[in-house]
Amino acid sequence: MNNLIEDLNWRYAAKRMNGQAVPQEKLNTILEAIKLSPSSAGLQPYNIVVISDQETKNRIFKEAAPQPQIPDASHLLVFAAWDKITAAQITEYMQLIATTRGISVESLAKFHENVTNSIEARSDEGNFNWAARQAYIALGHALVAAATEHVDATPMEGFNSAKLDDILGLTEKGLKSVVIMTLGYRDSENDGLSKAKKVRRSKEELFISI
Amino acid sequence: MNNLIEDLNWRYAAKRMNGQAVPQEKLNTILEAIKLSPSSAGLQPYNIVVISDQETKNRIFKEAAPQPQIPDASHLLVFAAWDKITAAQITEYMQLIATTRGISVESLAKFHENVTNSIEARSDEGNFNWAARQAYIALGHALVAAATEHVDATPMEGFNSAKLDDILGLTEKGLKSVVIMTLGYRDSENDGLSKAKKVRRSKEELFISI
Repeated sequence: MNNLIEDLNWRYAAKRMNGQAVPQEKLNTILEAIKLSPSSAGLQPYNIVVISDQETKNRIFKEAAPQPQIPDASHLLVFAAWDKITAAQITEYMQLIATTRGISVESLAKFHENVTNSIEARSDEGNFNWAARQAYIALGHALVAAATEHVDATPMEGFNSAKLDDILGLTEKGLKSVVIMTLGYRDSENDGLSKAKKVRRSKEELFISI
Repeated sequence: MNNLIEDLNWRYAAKRMNGQAVPQEKLNTILEAIKLSPSSAGLQPYNIVVISDQETKNRIFKEAAPQPQIPDASHLLVFAAWDKITAAQITEYMQLIATTRGISVESLAKFHENVTNSIEARSDEGNFNWAARQAYIALGHALVAAATEHVDATPMEGFNSAKLDDILGLTEKGLKSVVIMTLGYRDSENDGLSKAKKVRRSKEELFISI
C-alpha cells in the first residue's frame, strides 16, 4: 500500500493521550505543513495558537474543553479565524506579495481591488465563515502531516469557543477559535477506540463519477 | 528537507493545465485520502463528484466556472456538502458503525442521541455550514495527497454554485457544491505563476506560542 494511505489508516482521533512530548522537529514539520496550506486568494485569514504550557492546557481542560486528551497532549493547537477582514489586512498581504516576489505594490492594483471587492461583497459573518473554512484546509494539512510523522492528532469542535477565546485573549486580537487539535501520543490501554475498526462510507457511497 | 514539506513547496495552484491524464493509481490515492479524512462525529456529511467526462468539464467551464484549467484538467472534483442533515442519514451512519465494528446498533444508542441532539441544536443553514467545514478538511487531505503524488491540484471557490448544482443535478440529491478542485498537470509555459515564489506569512506572524 502507498505510504501516505498506510499513515492515514494508522491515524485515528485518540481520546486518551499518554503525556509524551512531541519532538520539536516533528512539531516543526506539522507547523510548516499548516503554513504551506493554501487559502482563498492566498490571504491565510487565520492564526494558530500553539500551546505547550501545561497550566494553560489544564485551564482549558477545566474551563473550555473537558476532553481528557487535552491535559495529556504534548501540544494543543487552536485554529482561530479572523473575526472580520479589514482593509489594512488586505493591504499588508499585498505588501507581503510584493516583498516576497520582488515586484511593486502598484502591479498588484487589480488583484488588490478584486480581493477587496470579494471581501466587501460579504457581511462580517460571511467573511468569518469563509475564514473558518480556510482554517479547516489548514487543519486538513495538519492532520495529514501529523499522520506522516506518526504523531497522534485529535481534531475537536465540541468546546466552549467564547470561553476559550477569553482564556487566550483572542477577541482583542480579532480572532475567534473555530476548531482545536491535540498533538501527542495515544494511550492505547486506556482508549477503547484505539483498536476499533475505522468507519468510512464506501467509495460507491462517497463518490459520484461522471 | 522532509519529503512532505518538499512536496508541499512543490505544489501551487496551477492556473493552466496541459490536458495530460492523471493515472488511475494516483487518482485512487487521492480519493482514498479523501475517504480517510476525519469529520466531526465521523459523519462525513458530504459527497464528492469526480468528473473526467470532457463534455461535462467543458460545460462547467462555459456555464459555471470560467477558469481555463477546468477543461484542461484531467479530473474536476466537486466537494458538495449535505444541504441538511436528516434523521435517516444519522441512522444509516449508526448502522454503518455497527456493521463495520461487528457491534449492535443498540450499543450506539447514547452516541446516536448525542449526534442527533447536536444536529438538532443547529438550523439547517448552521448544519450546512458545519458540513461545508468538514468538506474542507477533506479538501486539505486531497491537496496534500495530490502533492505527494506530484499531481497538480487547484482549489477554487470562485464559481457559480447554483449553476454547477444545476448542471450536476445536486439539488435533488440534497447536495450543494462548496468548493471545487482540478487535478492534472501544470502548463508551466502558459502559467505566469508557475515560477512565482510562494507567498506565506512568516511563522512569527502565523503562530502564537504559549
